[in-house]
Amino acid sequence: MKTGEIAELVHGQLVGNDSIEICRVAATGNASNGEISFLERADADLKTSAACVLVPENFKPADSLTVIKVKNPKLAFALIAEVLHPPKQRDPEIHPTAVISESADVALNAFIGAFTCVGDNSSVGEGTQLRAGAKIGDNVSIGRNCILHPNVFVEDGCTLGDNVILHAGVVIGSDGFGFVRGEDRYVKFPQIGIVVIEDNVEIGANTCVDRGALGETRIGEGTKIDNLVQIAHNVQIGKRVVIAAQTGISGSTVIEDDCVIGGQVGFGDHARVQSGAIIGSQAGVLPGKIVRPGVWWGTPIQPLDEYKRQNAHVKGLARLKEEVKKLSEQLDALNGEK
Amino acid sequence: MKTGEIAELVHGQLVGNDSIEICRVAATGNASNGEISFLERADADLKTSAACVLVPENFKPADSLTVIKVKNPKLAFALIAEVLHPPKQRDPEIHPTAVISESADVALNAFIGAFTCVGDNSSVGEGTQLRAGAKIGDNVSIGRNCILHPNVFVEDGCTLGDNVILHAGVVIGSDGFGFVRGEDRYVKFPQIGIVVIEDNVEIGANTCVDRGALGETRIGEGTKIDNLVQIAHNVQIGKRVVIAAQTGISGSTVIEDDCVIGGQVGFGDHARVQSGAIIGSQAGVLPGKIVRPGVWWGTPIQPLDEYKRQNAHVKGLARLKEEVKKLSEQLDALNGEK
Amino acid sequence: MKTGEIAELVHGQLVGNDSIEICRVAATGNASNGEISFLERADADLKTSAACVLVPENFKPADSLTVIKVKNPKLAFALIAEVLHPPKQRDPEIHPTAVISESADVALNAFIGAFTCVGDNSSVGEGTQLRAGAKIGDNVSIGRNCILHPNVFVEDGCTLGDNVILHAGVVIGSDGFGFVRGEDRYVKFPQIGIVVIEDNVEIGANTCVDRGALGETRIGEGTKIDNLVQIAHNVQIGKRVVIAAQTGISGSTVIEDDCVIGGQVGFGDHARVQSGAIIGSQAGVLPGKIVRPGVWWGTPIQPLDEYKRQNAHVKGLARLKEEVKKLSEQLDALNGEK
Repeated sequence: MKTGEIAELVHGQLVGNDSIEICRVAATGNASNGEISFLERADADLKTSAACVLVPENFKPADSLTVIKVKNPKLAFALIAEVLHPPKQRDPEIHPTAVISESADVALNAFIGAFTCVGDNSSVGEGTQLRAGAKIGDNVSIGRNCILHPNVFVEDGCTLGDNVILHAGVVIGSDGFGFVRGEDRYVKFPQIGIVVIEDNVEIGANTCVDRGALGETRIGEGTKIDNLVQIAHNVQIGKRVVIAAQTGISGSTVIEDDCVIGGQVGFGDHARVQSGAIIGSQAGVLPGKIVRPGVWWGTPIQPLDEYKRQNAHVKGLARLKEEVKKLSEQLDALNGEK
Repeated sequence: MKTGEIAELVHGQLVGNDSIEICRVAATGNASNGEISFLERADADLKTSAACVLVPENFKPADSLTVIKVKNPKLAFALIAEVLHPPKQRDPEIHPTAVISESADVALNAFIGAFTCVGDNSSVGEGTQLRAGAKIGDNVSIGRNCILHPNVFVEDGCTLGDNVILHAGVVIGSDGFGFVRGEDRYVKFPQIGIVVIEDNVEIGANTCVDRGALGETRIGEGTKIDNLVQIAHNVQIGKRVVIAAQTGISGSTVIEDDCVIGGQVGFGDHARVQSGAIIGSQAGVLPGKIVRPGVWWGTPIQPLDEYKRQNAHVKGLARLKEEVKKLSEQLDALNGEK
Repeated sequence: MKTGEIAELVHGQLVGNDSIEICRVAATGNASNGEISFLERADADLKTSAACVLVPENFKPADSLTVIKVKNPKLAFALIAEVLHPPKQRDPEIHPTAVISESADVALNAFIGAFTCVGDNSSVGEGTQLRAGAKIGDNVSIGRNCILHPNVFVEDGCTLGDNVILHAGVVIGSDGFGFVRGEDRYVKFPQIGIVVIEDNVEIGANTCVDRGALGETRIGEGTKIDNLVQIAHNVQIGKRVVIAAQTGISGSTVIEDDCVIGGQVGFGDHARVQSGAIIGSQAGVLPGKIVRPGVWWGTPIQPLDEYKRQNAHVKGLARLKEEVKKLSEQLDALNGEK
C-alpha cells in the first residue's frame, strides 16, 4: 500500500511523499523502512525511523517526515492494520485426520485442520477455519469467515454468526451450573438450552460460555470478550460490549449494548447493566442489581465519585478519631472547670 | 411419560388429565404441547401453554390446566428432567483414532471418542464416555458412567469414582504450585501425590484440580464445582459442597460437607470451612482461618450481619465527620464565651 | 541413593547410618522404609517411620533415628526430590499420528506425542516432550528439555527457552485484547507481536499469555506462574517472580525480578512493580501505579501496615460513632446549663 492510498483509506491529510510503499505497522520506537506508526498526542516528542506516521491534525511535523494527519491516529492505525495484517488465511483443506460426520455441511473453501471433529447435522460456513484440535458437536451452525483456534470446543446445538473468532481453549455451550438441593443430594437442574453468538464477536482464550438452562445464552453483535471470562447460563450480552479478562457473569444477568466491563468483575445473577455503563475492574455487582449508565466502581458497586469520596473518608479515619479524642479531652476540661 | 406417572414420580397430587404425554421440560413462558413447566410461588401469575405445570401445594389452578401439586416444584422439575433429559448416551465404541495402551482396561460398553488417549494400566469403567480429545495418563482409574467432555485431561495416578462429569478443558492432577526459594532460584517442592474424585462429582469447564504434593487432593461425593475454579494441592473438599465459578482454593485448605461457596472467592492455604458454612461471592478467607457455620461475606470475611453493619457505618462516614465538625464548633463557641 | 550421599548433596551433617537406601520422599506422617522426610522446626514433635529425616541443625534426634542436619530442611528435601523424582522421562519417539511440518526441525531425542502438531519452520530442542494434543504453530522455537503437557498451544512466532514446563491447557501467544472504538464498531488494534519465555519458567494449567500487540510479552528466567493466570499483551515479567493462581496482569505492566504475587490479584495496565515487592492475594493495583518494594495489600493496594491500621479503624467505627453521640449529649447538657 502506498502512503497516498493509506491517506485516502483513513480520510487523512498527507504531508510529504505519497508514494512510499508501506507493508507493516509498527510502534514509533521500532519502526523502520516500509513501516507506518502513529502518534496519539500532538505534543508528544516524535523520534522515529518510520516511513510514515499517523498524527493528530494539529501536529507540526519536521520537514523530512511523511505524515498523515487524522482525527484519531490510533483508530486510523488500527484500520490500516486490518488491511496490512488480516487474520492469517489458510488454504481450503480438510485434513485427512479430521473426523466429520456424513450429515455435516462443510463449505468447500473452509479450512478444517488436524484432529478436528464436526458432528452430525452441523454446518461450517465459507472461509471458516477450524484449527487443529477444534471440536464442534452436533447440530452446531458456524457462519462464514470464523476462526476457531486450536482446542476450541462448541457443544451441541450452539450457533455462531459470521466473522466470529474464538481463541484457543474456548468452551461454548458447556452445561450451566444449576442444581436443586434434594433431601440427600443435589439434583441437576436441566441445562438443555443453547448458546447464540452473533456476528463479529471475539472471545479470548480459555473463556467459557455456558448454554442456557432452558432458553439461550446470547452474545451480541460486535462484542469483544477477553481471556478466562466466565459467562453463565442464560446471560444476555448486548452489542459492542467489551469485557476484560477473568470477569464472571452469573446466570440470567443482562448486559446491554455498548457497556464496558473491566477485569475480574463479578456479577450476581439476574442483574441488569444498562446501555453505556462502565464498570471498573474487580467490582462486584449484587444479584438483581440494576446498574444505570455512568462509571461504577467497588464492591458492592457505587458511582465512581461516591467510591472515591468514601475511600477518602476511610483514609481520613485516623484523623477523625484523633479529633474526637481531642474534643473529648476539651469537654472533660470544661466539665472539670465547673 | 404420562402426567399420571410424573405425579407418582414426584409424589405430587395431580389435578386434571392424568394421561397427557410429556416429552420435554420447558420454562412456563415458552412451553407448549408435550412440555411440562414449574411455578415456584403460588402467588405468581401463571400464563403458559404448557401441557402440565408443577405448582406449589397451595396454588389454585384454572379449570382448564393440568397441574401437579408438590412441596418443591423446582426440585420436582429437576427430578423429571433427569428422566426426560438424561445425559446424552453414546453407543459403545472405540474410535479408530484412539490411542489406548495395551495394558489399559477399558470396559466393553465404554465410549472412547476420536483423538483420545488412555495410558498404561489405566481403567475406564462401564458406560463411561471419553469424548473427543479427552486424555488420561497412566495408572488412572475411572469409574462407571462417567462423562469426560472434550479435551479433558486426567494426569497419572488419579482416580475418579462413578457418575463423575468433567466438562470440557478440565485438568485433573497437574502439578501443584510449590517451590522453595534456594540461593539463586526456586526449587520445585515435589508434587508427587494424586487427586481422588468421589462419586457423583461434577466439575465445570476449564477448572483445574492440582495433585497433592505428597498426599492427595480429594473432592467428596456429590460435590458440584463450576467453571474456571482453581483447586490447589492437598485441598480436601467434603461431600455435597457447591462452589461457584472462578473461586480459588489454596493448598491444604479443607472445606467440609454441605458448604456453599460463591464465585470468585479466594481461600488462603490451610484454612478450614466448617460443615454448612455459606460464603458470599468475592469473599477472601485468610490462610489458616477457621470459618464456622453461618453466612460469611467480604475480605477478610466477616459474618454477613457484621459486614452489613460495617458497610452502613462506612457509608455514614460523611455524616459522622460533619457531626464532629459541628461539635468542634460548639466547643469552640463555649470556650470563647469564657 | 544412600543416606551418606544425600547428606553430601545437601551439605548436611549425618547422624546415624550412612548407608540406608532411599528411593522416595514422603511426609513424616506417611513415610516408611526407603523414604526420607523433613521437619521444618526443631521444636516440632517428630513421629515417623521414615528411614531418614532432614532436620534443623539444632534438632535433638532420638538415638534410633537417622537424621541429616541442615540449615533449611524444606529446601534440602526439595533438592533431594529433584534427584529422586525427576520429571517423567519419555523415550524419544515421534508418534505416528503427529502432524509435523516438513520445514520443522525436531531434535532426534525429542518426544512428540499423539495428536500433536508442529508448524512450519518451528524447532523442538533436545529432550523436549510434546505430550498428547500439544500444538505449536509456525516459526515457534522451543528449547531443550521442555515439557509441554497435553493440549498446550503455542501460537506462531513465540519462543521458549530451555527447561520450560507448560502445564495442560496453557495458551501462549493468543491475541491480546486491544480494540479501538470506531464510529459503529470496535476495530482490532493489531496483535502482531510475540511471546518470549525464558529458561526454567513453569506455567500452570489453563493459564493464558497473550502475544505483544506490536512488541513482545516476556516472562523472565526462573519465573513460576500458577494455574488460570491471565498475562496480557506486552507485559514484562522479570526473573524469579512467583505468581499465584487466577491473578490477572493487564497490558504493558512490568513486574520486576524477585517479586511475589498472591492469587486473584488484579493489575491495571502500565503499572510497575519494583523488584522484591510482595503483593497479597486479591489485591488491586491501579493502572500506571508504581509499587515500591515492601508488602502490599488491598484494593487499591496499600502497605500492609497501613492496610491493617485502616482495617482496625473501620472495625472501630461503631465505637467511634457511639463516642461522638456521647460527646454531643454532654455538649447539649453543658449548653443546657447556661
